[in-house]
Amino acid sequence: MIEIEHGHGGRKSLDLIQQLILPALGASGAPTLDSARLSGLGDDDLVFSTDSFTISPLFFPGGDIGKLSVCGTVNDLAVAGGRPEYLSLALILEEGFPLEDLRRIMESVGATARDAGVKVVCGDTKVVERGKADGVYTNVTGVGAALPRHPFGPAAIRPGDKILISGTIGDHGAAILAVRNELPMASQIPSDCAPLWPMTRAIFEAGGEHVHAMRDPTRGGLAATLNEFALDASLEFVIREEDVPVRAEVAEMLEVLGMDPMALANEGKLIAFVAPDGADAAMEAMRQSPIGAQAAVIGEVGGAREDGRVLLETAFGTRRVLEMPVGEGLPRIC
Amino acid sequence: MIEIEHGHGGRKSLDLIQQLILPALGASGAPTLDSARLSGLGDDDLVFSTDSFTISPLFFPGGDIGKLSVCGTVNDLAVAGGRPEYLSLALILEEGFPLEDLRRIMESVGATARDAGVKVVCGDTKVVERGKADGVYTNVTGVGAALPRHPFGPAAIRPGDKILISGTIGDHGAAILAVRNELPMASQIPSDCAPLWPMTRAIFEAGGEHVHAMRDPTRGGLAATLNEFALDASLEFVIREEDVPVRAEVAEMLEVLGMDPMALANEGKLIAFVAPDGADAAMEAMRQSPIGAQAAVIGEVGGAREDGRVLLETAFGTRRVLEMPVGEGLPRIC
Repeated sequence: MIEIEHGHGGRKSLDLIQQLILPALGASGAPTLDSARLSGLGDDDLVFSTDSFTISPLFFPGGDIGKLSVCGTVNDLAVAGGRPEYLSLALILEEGFPLEDLRRIMESVGATARDAGVKVVCGDTKVVERGKADGVYTNVTGVGAALPRHPFGPAAIRPGDKILISGTIGDHGAAILAVRNELPMASQIPSDCAPLWPMTRAIFEAGGEHVHAMRDPTRGGLAATLNEFALDASLEFVIREEDVPVRAEVAEMLEVLGMDPMALANEGKLIAFVAPDGADAAMEAMRQSPIGAQAAVIGEVGGAREDGRVLLETAFGTRRVLEMPVGEGLPRIC
Repeated sequence: MIEIEHGHGGRKSLDLIQQLILPALGASGAPTLDSARLSGLGDDDLVFSTDSFTISPLFFPGGDIGKLSVCGTVNDLAVAGGRPEYLSLALILEEGFPLEDLRRIMESVGATARDAGVKVVCGDTKVVERGKADGVYTNVTGVGAALPRHPFGPAAIRPGDKILISGTIGDHGAAILAVRNELPMASQIPSDCAPLWPMTRAIFEAGGEHVHAMRDPTRGGLAATLNEFALDASLEFVIREEDVPVRAEVAEMLEVLGMDPMALANEGKLIAFVAPDGADAAMEAMRQSPIGAQAAVIGEVGGAREDGRVLLETAFGTRRVLEMPVGEGLPRIC
């Protein structure tokens, strides 16, 4: 039966998709169910991505479910190499949900869409009885024009590529954790929830064909994203732990809780795999962005390895395997 | 606060969208939040539509939430004048949901997508705690190529247009009603849940520019769709009650319950507004379709009327106003 861990974005989520959902869809399904690049609907390819949002609480430091919903889908399109253009917005509302909260959330959708330069063009509203939802769940699906005309995606990653992160990691997960547990530092740890577009455009403009792949490390954090990419690319990645930026407040809180920022969700960060010749320019483009001041090169791509592997190099020079997170995720983080 | 009636697709649903959601979205929102026609993403226009599904029960005579989810969105694209191409599929799963049920639903998604000639190309899976959903909720969002190059939609409806329905009405709503109430005739009333594509293609090929508008009368039934179109087009419609096809079993059941088939949901029917010169050809195209054998001309478009109006002409020649359904809908019908 479905367990909470099936929703964490780690091993169990992948297994559910690969072992049950994709085989059941058969020939009607795509090889993966990530954001898709679509051909045949005009001259240029499109990008297409969907996300449902069940975050709890609905309002949190740095955002709310409305802002998160727009960012989540805009960011999927952006790191898939798209120029986000149009969004759909579907609501599942629980009977008794306050209209004033709905209004705040919709205003937040509107404001974030404006920031990201996208339009909400179609929608749907469903209502379920009290106790059959938790206030409001959303779905935002988006389409955009595909920008890169060079090979782009995990399969384009090459040995020697630099691995870049656009800023501090774990902020979104830490923010939700702090609010849920009513920790005193909650107000000092805002979620990083933000649109990654137009930063991704600047990275493409600066790095050109050297930009081989991008991803936003959401559920399962950097650990899940790196492991997925390493597996897809059949390559080994080496990450220098001390170069991975973490906010002091986040590091402090997680140390007390015994948690790892590498496995915590981000909602306004991206990792990029860039060939050495383009890495400086891509890094500079990130740093020029208002949300990329703390961008850093955190590692390199090593050699071929059938089943992929992510190695974490500590400050003392020792190396350990960074595993795909299994059951340690937070439920309803996005 | 949100009431069950906000989800019925009638007056209250429209008010919520027009008075709260659209003003809050501001400039980021489209004028309506129906399926949208998108320009600027290539040479040809696209159609784009979203629907979330919260139907209860998940399995019912004639279908399940998987089949319904694909049909719902494929049909929105089809009646918007699109050739459905690509779907996204997002799941909100309740902890404890049986994997076997999920597999059946996914197989149903796969089979229906195959029937409709579409691909499921991206997806998302979220899990919420027990008691925070009702088994599974889905969202399916779709894109397709826009076919008609002539004016198409409510604004293109003209006085004198014939109003066509592709078959019997109220079957989906009646099926769900019978199952929920454990009525003895439940097994004899299957939902009409079916993809309207490729029937819509045949209608366009046959009727050409005479085909002015189409819509699938789902939540709120024929009564809601006719009233929305009459209002949007600022025209009066006259419907001949005796020409509206209703299955005998459905009519019988609804008479006992004191309910009107005009306000019950359909999930495999469309109404079309066609200029007289194209009406016979369009009707023939419907009837040639395996799901259109009982297609009928049910009325005509009358003259201009600022606030729109739908008149129902009885067998005795009397006329009454067919109102937009207000609170009589069924919750979680789709």
